[in-house]
Amino acid sequence: MKIDGTPYRTIWPEGDHVMILDQTLFPHKFEVMRLATRDDAARAIRDMHVRGAPLIGATAAWGLALAMQTDPSDANLAGSADALAATRPTAINLRWALERVRAHLAPLPPSNRADAARALAVHIADEDVAINSAIGDHGLPLIRAIAERKGGKPVNILTHCNAGWLATVDWGTATAPIYKAHDAGIPVHVWVDETRPRNQGAFLTAWELGHHGVPHTVIVDNAGGHLMQHGQVDMVIVGTDRTTATGDVCNKIGTYLKALAARDNGVPFYVALPTPTIDWTVRDGVSEIPIEDRSGDEVRFLSGRLPDGTVGRIDLLPPGAPTANPAFDVTPARLVTGLVTEKGVVPATEAGMAPLRP
Amino acid sequence: MKIDGTPYRTIWPEGDHVMILDQTLFPHKFEVMRLATRDDAARAIRDMHVRGAPLIGATAAWGLALAMQTDPSDANLAGSADALAATRPTAINLRWALERVRAHLAPLPPSNRADAARALAVHIADEDVAINSAIGDHGLPLIRAIAERKGGKPVNILTHCNAGWLATVDWGTATAPIYKAHDAGIPVHVWVDETRPRNQGAFLTAWELGHHGVPHTVIVDNAGGHLMQHGQVDMVIVGTDRTTATGDVCNKIGTYLKALAARDNGVPFYVALPTPTIDWTVRDGVSEIPIEDRSGDEVRFLSGRLPDGTVGRIDLLPPGAPTANPAFDVTPARLVTGLVTEKGVVPATEAGMAPLRP
Repeated sequence: MKIDGTPYRTIWPEGDHVMILDQTLFPHKFEVMRLATRDDAARAIRDMHVRGAPLIGATAAWGLALAMQTDPSDANLAGSADALAATRPTAINLRWALERVRAHLAPLPPSNRADAARALAVHIADEDVAINSAIGDHGLPLIRAIAERKGGKPVNILTHCNAGWLATVDWGTATAPIYKAHDAGIPVHVWVDETRPRNQGAFLTAWELGHHGVPHTVIVDNAGGHLMQHGQVDMVIVGTDRTTATGDVCNKIGTYLKALAARDNGVPFYVALPTPTIDWTVRDGVSEIPIEDRSGDEVRFLSGRLPDGTVGRIDLLPPGAPTANPAFDVTPARLVTGLVTEKGVVPATEAGMAPLRP
Repeated sequence: MKIDGTPYRTIWPEGDHVMILDQTLFPHKFEVMRLATRDDAARAIRDMHVRGAPLIGATAAWGLALAMQTDPSDANLAGSADALAATRPTAINLRWALERVRAHLAPLPPSNRADAARALAVHIADEDVAINSAIGDHGLPLIRAIAERKGGKPVNILTHCNAGWLATVDWGTATAPIYKAHDAGIPVHVWVDETRPRNQGAFLTAWELGHHGVPHTVIVDNAGGHLMQHGQVDMVIVGTDRTTATGDVCNKIGTYLKALAARDNGVPFYVALPTPTIDWTVRDGVSEIPIEDRSGDEVRFLSGRLPDGTVGRIDLLPPGAPTANPAFDVTPARLVTGLVTEKGVVPATEAGMAPLRP
């Protein structure tokens, strides 16, 4: 998408190197970071200069390509895949991308591996862009229909967390239909949930929408229900980390509360996702999906710009106050109006999802 | 309630002066502040060293008593009442307390006014304590019943914002049943919603529960639904700024989302309130109660302890990002299990509330 008029992706080759946006600095600074070596790529993933499953996968693929440029041996291929896999032990997409590249390169003579790795990294990134763009194309008519009903008044869309282009190579998932609508001249306005505790909505979604030029307003996570009660939300679109075979949606903590409010107020609640993120082995999201309990420091501490422009971290809590920090929740399928995928929009039911099965 | 073993109220006389807890410093510092003059009291209210409707009312009454100590003339009585009323223009309780004291003093000879004002200020504070204590007594059996069902395991109670003793003279409203249960030896554990944007849960409720010794855990506002889905919340108790004649409850933004989650998971949702806060003139809370849109700076900026121990303020948002900040929402009566008042627990219906009518 665009940053102040200039088209960007979150990762792209430049000469022999790979460039990324340094996402640890958002929204306080915008810097492009150069990855020259495999270790640069590993560090970028481990220290979260890149985040979001698709972008982590693409960065890992590029990391292997950088490794093959200097040493295309079998030993370095295996060692580099292991080194990159160790950066974020629970990221399934990371392991999937690495295995795909490794399996592709292993049968090739070492002298061919650098070029082949590079071509595959480009392909993996392009694939992600194509999937997200297709999600946008399928979601666009949902927004257009509301716009037509509203006769030119902006379509108010609420989103939670960052399922935006910064989490992918381009377009994002939940944001893809929004960008498609905005770029097509349909007036949209996005309510951006702050998304405590990591504030991805405030830090990332507001940043990317603002720089692309999409009208938006940041609200605290508490505000969405009130806005829906007063007709100020026309639809909700969120992303998902994992969707079950029955349409239950695991996503950032707080998503479930917005789905309840949407249902209580007759607001359609859509989930945007690439079909590969559907976990066909799970049927009951609430009882079967383990929810990560993250560090309470994420609740206690928060970073932002101090009055002198530097970035500082404050402690928000009484000393010693206990904290709990479940990172995700599960929205039961009964609250989901539809799943917006690269293959089309389907109901969040086992029967409805049948066409999405691989 | 207690602060590290020592019983406190939020306001009390000491010699010719009045002492308050300086609530602007919570949770980062604990300081007692001396109010020696009417202007001290006015400043304490205006600059939010005291907050919460009952405590503001008590402080205003004490402000008039301080005024009468130095000049009990008619002119000073009227002028001081006006000066104190101007400190928080929208606080109804403030005006009510001032009018009550003024009407009581006006017929008296000036020489009697200082003592009478002092006696009435003491009485107003004691009345608030008695009301909240009665709310606690009526709420206690609700907690006890759950405790008996759970056979000694802690009763998990979720609360939002600060309807605690720091907002009143003592006991609080939502916290009164909790303190009564804790003091009676019933094991309780409180999930404390952070309560963005002003973080009253994190800053005040966690502080007061911690210093009284009540087990609690601070969570972000997004987490409550997930906890309820997993059986980790036995009941919700919140306060209210205004309750309608039909039982709709206006309270801090985000309360409605918790009520929806409670309903979806069969968790009882109680609202604790003194019956004088019921607005018998309003029937439909969602359509009739105007919701204050507060400054977006409350969403953008947040204060906390910097690593060097000083208190600093950080900017959380991309420069220029638009914000909206509705301060309250309305929970429809259909989601409310019961109203816990100083007169007893009643259903949140017009018929159920009939015994509460003045």
